[in-house]
This record gives sequence, structure tokens and C-alpha cells, in this order.
Amino acid sequence: METYYDPKDLGSIAEIGKDAPELAGKFFDYYNEVFAEGDLTEREKALIALAVAHTVQCPYCIDAYTRACLEKGSHLGEMTEALHVVTAIRGGASLVHGVQMRKIAEKLSL
Amino acid sequence: METYYDPKDLGSIAEIGKDAPELAGKFFDYYNEVFAEGDLTEREKALIALAVAHTVQCPYCIDAYTRACLEKGSHLGEMTEALHVVTAIRGGASLVHGVQMRKIAEKLSL
Amino acid sequence: METYYDPKDLGSIAEIGKDAPELAGKFFDYYNEVFAEGDLTEREKALIALAVAHTVQCPYCIDAYTRACLEKGSHLGEMTEALHVVTAIRGGASLVHGVQMRKIAEKLSL
Amino acid sequence: METYYDPKDLGSIAEIGKDAPELAGKFFDYYNEVFAEGDLTEREKALIALAVAHTVQCPYCIDAYTRACLEKGSHLGEMTEALHVVTAIRGGASLVHGVQMRKIAEKLSL
Amino acid sequence: METYYDPKDLGSIAEIGKDAPELAGKFFDYYNEVFAEGDLTEREKALIALAVAHTVQCPYCIDAYTRACLEKGSHLGEMTEALHVVTAIRGGASLVHGVQMRKIAEKLSL
Amino acid sequence: METYYDPKDLGSIAEIGKDAPELAGKFFDYYNEVFAEGDLTEREKALIALAVAHTVQCPYCIDAYTRACLEKGSHLGEMTEALHVVTAIRGGASLVHGVQMRKIAEKLSL
Repeated sequence: METYYDPKDLGSIAEIGKDAPELAGKFFDYYNEVFAEGDLTEREKALIALAVAHTVQCPYCIDAYTRACLEKGSHLGEMTEALHVVTAIRGGASLVHGVQMRKIAEKLSL
Repeated sequence: METYYDPKDLGSIAEIGKDAPELAGKFFDYYNEVFAEGDLTEREKALIALAVAHTVQCPYCIDAYTRACLEKGSHLGEMTEALHVVTAIRGGASLVHGVQMRKIAEKLSL
Repeated sequence: METYYDPKDLGSIAEIGKDAPELAGKFFDYYNEVFAEGDLTEREKALIALAVAHTVQCPYCIDAYTRACLEKGSHLGEMTEALHVVTAIRGGASLVHGVQMRKIAEKLSL
Repeated sequence: METYYDPKDLGSIAEIGKDAPELAGKFFDYYNEVFAEGDLTEREKALIALAVAHTVQCPYCIDAYTRACLEKGSHLGEMTEALHVVTAIRGGASLVHGVQMRKIAEKLSL
Repeated sequence: METYYDPKDLGSIAEIGKDAPELAGKFFDYYNEVFAEGDLTEREKALIALAVAHTVQCPYCIDAYTRACLEKGSHLGEMTEALHVVTAIRGGASLVHGVQMRKIAEKLSL
Repeated sequence: METYYDPKDLGSIAEIGKDAPELAGKFFDYYNEVFAEGDLTEREKALIALAVAHTVQCPYCIDAYTRACLEKGSHLGEMTEALHVVTAIRGGASLVHGVQMRKIAEKLSL
């Protein structure tokens, strides 16, 4: 193996079904329903998925949802805006926990 | 303190600016631009933010973006679909790493 | 460097001990005790470790615990079931935070 | 609301199904299959789930799988050992990325 | 239980040693060495720990290291700057993965 | 593409500004202020950033802050100590959540 993260492996995801077929079947049954059009469009769902993929830093998922976003009609400007939402919230989720730090620091300094 | 996670603290987030005002100023300058209408609408950005908030399990953020989604015109059905996209990708990000496990297991069993 | 994630680097983990030998010594002292047979068997511990490795998406760890699981007598079917537990909980951990979203949304819609 | 993390909310998880019933149905269909006895026993799966729950720091999940572990016949000694596996791997996943730091530092110091 | 996150529980962390005393002993042996003065001062280590505590959003850890930082002589201005480093990197870690998105999008648009 | 994680891509991070220049501009405006000398020195901030980079397992960030730490005058011994702080807290953040497990287990066994 040359690298742990080989883009060719994304094509092998279905093989995960070889060893526990019932579980893989039910997962993909759920998964396909999640991405089908519902109250949200397929395009909206792909954009959300792209954002989550960057949040969890999963390169296989970034690959898959970059393709999905383009297929569903989003362009790179929209996708980059979605990525900035991730940056703002993922960073901000730590920043807002600073309210706990401040409360404790203020209590101790009384 | 009765609990670390007190919903009233969300209202104190601006106080983080007291101790390093220049940094808070520039962060919120970025943050406000991120959520302003651009190629994506404010409603789309709020939905993406709600998804990311659940991905990083930040209760302050879940609170703030639940409110933002409703204000921007999304309803609970759409928001719940966005949450299922999170569930599918966040779980799936681990599942797809199983391709690494399988490659190694197969190489060893030869 | 051709890739950040080079499988050959897993063999260099011990070198982390060169720069702070006391700390590395105590960490591996703890680590080795964690994986020794106790109330849980070594096989059970390796399966749990494989699951955690996929949860934190650490390819070095996936490599190491795939090998450990096979050595301790697990087969790929069991290991894949452990991976689905990860998928269900890691996704589910976000989904269950939806109870916070629903409470807030319901309060606002009264 | 007195706290974001109210233990009583765990009992409301099924209500997530009110707003997107098809998706919740398929998720729980998958979820129930994941925790049914297969190649791994229900007891083994509950222990793995407890470990993953601590890895992702989901208090609802910690609650649910602490109960499940006890019901399936594990005792607190075994559960605490599973928790130490989490500690060792979750910490270790960061430590092992130190091989990337060392390679870069060594290359620069040549 | 009124909340999952009760600040009083931080005082019970040592009880984790009741059920697997050997493991807890070795962990805290490592832990105490990590925070003792070495090449870095105790004050520097407490600031780094405060940053990591906010990165992993652990309220028990935020509490403990807020106290530790103040005891070791840092003030809230320094601690808030450390928190902004977290915000910039944690958000930025997702943003920089956008290079993968762009490479894929550009390849597809050729 | 040979690998998802190609070290050469770190040099392309600025290209993220092509598609949403206003957002990238404001983010880097914030980012540069975060790393400028303030109450903390640039050296201290780089060490904290290196720690956070390992916490979120971002190889691009590990690369960038390894270089920054060396440039700002830290040596590999100090950097490795910072890495052990990460290991202790990131692992410990899960371990301390064991207080929730113990409370529930004790309540059930009464």
C-alpha cells in the first residue's frame, strides 16, 4: 500500500456488504431514502452532505459529495459558501464554549 | 453552577469580546458575512449550519440555528431531513473507512 | 513526501519516544496495561479498539487494530459488525441531539 | 429550559420520527438489526457501543448503553476497561499523528 | 438526575479508579507527568490543555483547565487568545480540506 | 489522483479564495490577527495551534504548524510535550465522561 487514502478505494465501498450483507443492505436502504427528494431537494441535500463531509474531514465523502453537488446543479461558488458555513460553525462551536470558561473565571476572581 | 450547559449562557456569547476585542471583532465580521445572502440564500445557509451544529454536537449552536431556520422560513420537516443527512454521513464516514480495514485484512489472509 | 498518510510511518511510532522519553514511557506503560487481558479478553479489547479507530477515523489505528483483531482470533464478519455499531452510534449521536432541536422548535411555535 | 442536556429527553427520541417518519423508520430498522445478535453477541455489541458513546461524548448514548451493558450481563469492571480502551486509542490517535510532525521537522533540520 | 452535565461530578473523577484501579493508576501516572514542568512550563501546558479542552468541547476539562490556567498565572486575555487559536484552526481544518473539493471539481469540469 | 492527502495541496489553500473572495478575505483577516503577537507570543500561539492540529487530526495543519513552531523558535522536545498534552486531554475527555456512566450504573444497582 502506498497511501492509506487511495481515491480508488471509494469504488470499493460496496464490498463492505460482503461480510455482513443484511446490515449493509439496511444501511444503504436508509441511506438512499435520506438522499431521495423529500421536503428538501436532492440538490439541497447534496450541499448539506458536502458541508458535513468537510466537518468530519472524510476525504472519501468530500469526493463523493463534490461530484453529487455538481451533478445536482450546484456550482463551485455555492459549494465554497457552504464550506465557509462549516468553518464558521465548527470554529464557532469551540468559541461559544468560552462562555463556560468566562463564568468559571469570573466566579473564581470574585 | 447547576449545569455546564445552561441555555441562558447563549445570550452571553458577545461577552467573549471583552477580553480580546480585536479578535472577536474580526471573527464576527467574518461570521456575519458567512451568513449573509450570497450565492446561497440565508435559508439554505441556516439549514447547512443546523446540520453542522448537530455534527459537532454543540447545543448552543443547535439552539441558535433551530431559531434561525424557523425565522428564515424552514419547517421542522425540512430541518429533520437535514438532520438525517448528518446521521447518514457522520455514520457513513466511519463505515467507508472500512475499505482500509478490508484491504489490510485481505492482504494478511493471502 | 508523496502523501501525508504513508502506511510505512506506522512502524515509526516508537520514535515519538526520542524527544520526550519519560512521557512516551509512561504512555506506553499505560497503553500496554489497557490491552492486556483483564476482565475483558484481549480479543474483546481489540474489537473495541477497532471500533474506536473507525470512530476517530485514524488510519494508523485502523491498520494496527485490524491486524490485532485477526491475531486475537476475530474474523472479518465480526469486525464488520463492530464497524456497523460505530456507524449506528456515531450517526445516532447526532440524530439524538435532534431532541434539543424539537424542544426549541415546539416552544417557539406555541 | 434549565439545561440543554436533560436526561428526560432521552425518552423522547422516538418523536424524531414525527417529522420524517419514513427516514426514522428506515434508520431504526437498520439500528435494530445492528444490535441484534449476529456474529457478535448482544453483550459484545453493547460494550462496543458504550465505548463509541464515550468516544463521541454523547451523554444520551452513554446513558442508553450503560443500561444496555448492565442488562446484557456486563459489570462495571468490564465497562470501565472498555472505557480505558477508548482513552488509549482516542489519545493515541493524536499521538500517532506525531509521526507526520517528526518527518517534517527532520526534513527541515537537514 | 437533573442534567447530564453536573459540575459537581468533576470532583468524582477519581472514582473511575474504583473499578479498574491498575488502569486508572497508570493513566494518572502518565497524566501527572504530562503536566509537570519539562521543556514547557506548567503555565504553557495549562494553556495548551485549555485549548484542547475547547477543541473537544469537554465541559469538565474546560472547568479544570480554566482553574489551572489562572493558578499558573495566566489571565483571561491570554486564555481568550488561546481560544481564538482553537477557533481559527478547528474551523480552518475543514476549510483547508476544500483543496480536495476544488481538485475534484476542476478535474470534472475539464 | 494518487492520494487524497497530497502535501503539495497545502500550497493551494489560497485558491479557496477564488470562488468566494469576500469570505476568504475576511477569514484570513481574522486568521492573521489570531496568529499575530498579542497577550500571547507568536511562539506560544504556534505551539497551541500545533496541539489543536493534532487534536483534529488535520495533516495539512500539522504540516503548517510544525513549520511555524520551528520558525518561531520551538524545538522538537517542546513540540512533543505539547503533543502529549493533547494525548492526555483528548483521551481524558472520554475518560471523565465515565462519571456519567458510573452515576447511572450505581443508581440502577440500588
